[in-house]
Amino acid sequence: MIDVNKALELIEKNGTFLTAVQEMALPQALGFVLAEDIISTLDMPPFRQSAMDGYALRIGKNNSYSVIGEIKAGDNKNLSLKMGEAVRIFTGAPVPDSADTVIMQEKIIQDQGYISVEGSIEADLNIRPKGEQIHRGEIALKKGTTLKGAHIGYLASLGFTTVKVHLKPSVALVITGNELVPLGQLLPQGKIYESNGAMLTAVLTELGYKNVSSVSVKDELENTKGALLNAMETHDIVLVTGGISVGDYDYVGKALKAIKVEKVFYKVKQKPGKPLYFGKKESTSIFALPGNPAAALSCFYIYVFPLLKQIEGASVTQLERITMPIIKDYIPKGNQPQFLKARVLADGVEILSGQSSAMLRSFGVANALVFLPENTGQITQGEPVKVILTP
Amino acid sequence: MIDVNKALELIEKNGTFLTAVQEMALPQALGFVLAEDIISTLDMPPFRQSAMDGYALRIGKNNSYSVIGEIKAGDNKNLSLKMGEAVRIFTGAPVPDSADTVIMQEKIIQDQGYISVEGSIEADLNIRPKGEQIHRGEIALKKGTTLKGAHIGYLASLGFTTVKVHLKPSVALVITGNELVPLGQLLPQGKIYESNGAMLTAVLTELGYKNVSSVSVKDELENTKGALLNAMETHDIVLVTGGISVGDYDYVGKALKAIKVEKVFYKVKQKPGKPLYFGKKESTSIFALPGNPAAALSCFYIYVFPLLKQIEGASVTQLERITMPIIKDYIPKGNQPQFLKARVLADGVEILSGQSSAMLRSFGVANALVFLPENTGQITQGEPVKVILTP
Repeated sequence: MIDVNKALELIEKNGTFLTAVQEMALPQALGFVLAEDIISTLDMPPFRQSAMDGYALRIGKNNSYSVIGEIKAGDNKNLSLKMGEAVRIFTGAPVPDSADTVIMQEKIIQDQGYISVEGSIEADLNIRPKGEQIHRGEIALKKGTTLKGAHIGYLASLGFTTVKVHLKPSVALVITGNELVPLGQLLPQGKIYESNGAMLTAVLTELGYKNVSSVSVKDELENTKGALLNAMETHDIVLVTGGISVGDYDYVGKALKAIKVEKVFYKVKQKPGKPLYFGKKESTSIFALPGNPAAALSCFYIYVFPLLKQIEGASVTQLERITMPIIKDYIPKGNQPQFLKARVLADGVEILSGQSSAMLRSFGVANALVFLPENTGQITQGEPVKVILTP
Repeated sequence: MIDVNKALELIEKNGTFLTAVQEMALPQALGFVLAEDIISTLDMPPFRQSAMDGYALRIGKNNSYSVIGEIKAGDNKNLSLKMGEAVRIFTGAPVPDSADTVIMQEKIIQDQGYISVEGSIEADLNIRPKGEQIHRGEIALKKGTTLKGAHIGYLASLGFTTVKVHLKPSVALVITGNELVPLGQLLPQGKIYESNGAMLTAVLTELGYKNVSSVSVKDELENTKGALLNAMETHDIVLVTGGISVGDYDYVGKALKAIKVEKVFYKVKQKPGKPLYFGKKESTSIFALPGNPAAALSCFYIYVFPLLKQIEGASVTQLERITMPIIKDYIPKGNQPQFLKARVLADGVEILSGQSSAMLRSFGVANALVFLPENTGQITQGEPVKVILTP
């Protein structure tokens, strides 16, 4: 049995495969990971830009300026100002090279082709210097960036129409358990509805992984072998649920051995998800997750998510981790390191009731997991705990 | 000029329209808002369920039990145990009514049809009671819940194949500015690439709003009127960027008046986004956002996002707000209430450099906005600030 950090380390070390690179139109690249540094081909802004509606002026000897013209946003005019001259100018318009400053219109008085400025005049007011945001030749975004909406806007502002990104890994779900009945059928006594497939597909979709297939297999060796082999051969990552414990009808471990998957680790000192398995065969990685939905989802966020990000080339692979005070005393059950469903609120984090590994209900309310290290005793209100933000 | 809270209040009060309701297959409902309470038609688990691989037994007088059978997960067996009898049982299997407890297999010794149990035997161990997670007739999820991946799994576990949800609002973008050049063209002197359309489309897509159209208009009254009227007539929410300031070529205000949009407010005491406009006509709401991309995006998260959630019936409409210590001293520029691009880190929040309203670059790094109320003086490292988590 290894500990949580060792498991994460082994996953990182073994997940060396990288998905293919493709050039993609900018809007489609949302959520994908940049496969190269993006070098700006522009200064941004590309010219000295007025940040206000007002007057650009070349500072003279007194407060009265002769207005010699007008420059709107989008104009290509470079009027030449003499000392004591001004031009009417608008937000976003190019400031003439000969102008020293821009005075906002609220601060001037107009009078028949002349303006007078209230108060003293300083140079370089309300002007965004050329290249203030980025200079041509500088790195705009680094390789490994997962593209968010703001990045798409930023790249558009720099004139990029396509970018090279890594494709999303494909994921196969292999759902095991004789007790599982497909949705839409009647529920016989002793059975439950299959929900891991629906849950993991939805969570993967939510995170942008849409290339997901799902298959259910009975607790039987040959079927399990066949399903796993097929999944391994056609996908980048395989997630199995259930069948990995010590029960007589847990065939996943035997099947993985039989199809020659290399075991990287089995069992992690943690709650939930002690019997977590991670292995690989050629470029495909495989996790055997717990059969209980909530335990499976915890393990997905902690262990599977970082590998997905890693093999698509992301430089940040973990979910956001923060420290927050706990808002209510909490007495952990047991001494194992544990991941607890939690809710981040305005003034701290609440550990939710209903922590049983079978209880998916509280995951609906949760927006975080709290990690408690081994042998954590009672935690008192206000004490800081480690929080992992979940989608 | 009104303050931030008044603006939010006016938006909430005026956004009374609700989008249509549709019954949707469960996997497709991801990200949509429930239009009705979901009442469970099952007890979950539907039977007393073993939480372990081991032996179910009816407690007898000594520690030796006769094994009379086996129950696997998925079996429909209700064996009748006499005192001193046990059955082999597996995780997820139904525990017989006559069994008092389940002992995990690690704690027993097998001997030719008999088992003996190490240590004392307690009742009700390792059994998930029927209905532990939810009882038939109880509310599983409330109307107004935005369905996450975990909710989809939870509803699947309860046997739901469809749910009634609100449709996503449609959004029209109207992008104004003579200085803007479409992506893919050469950039003439004095112009910049249009990026608000790409940015807002991407941010809306990221949040699940895919019914987005975008049109660019020149700074000219008739065009602006036409584009706004068309957008208002065919969409639930219209977002205009630029053209709402006091410049001579800012036609949005005049156009809105001309097409009889009812102004709810114009100008909010804040930085960035002072000239924010909100209005409505029949069931359509309209925001005029700043032309500067970063200012437009701040206003989107603070003001537009809650209205999108509200009109699709969500009970939680705001982005998550938390309190965190600041990790570095910060001296605010000016006394206005301000929203600053920030990054939440493990031990606190960092206010990013590059706060200019034109600078989209820092929004790529940001995962939060810090709100500073009016007249905030210098903030010292470790002082708590209000943080709004952004996608």
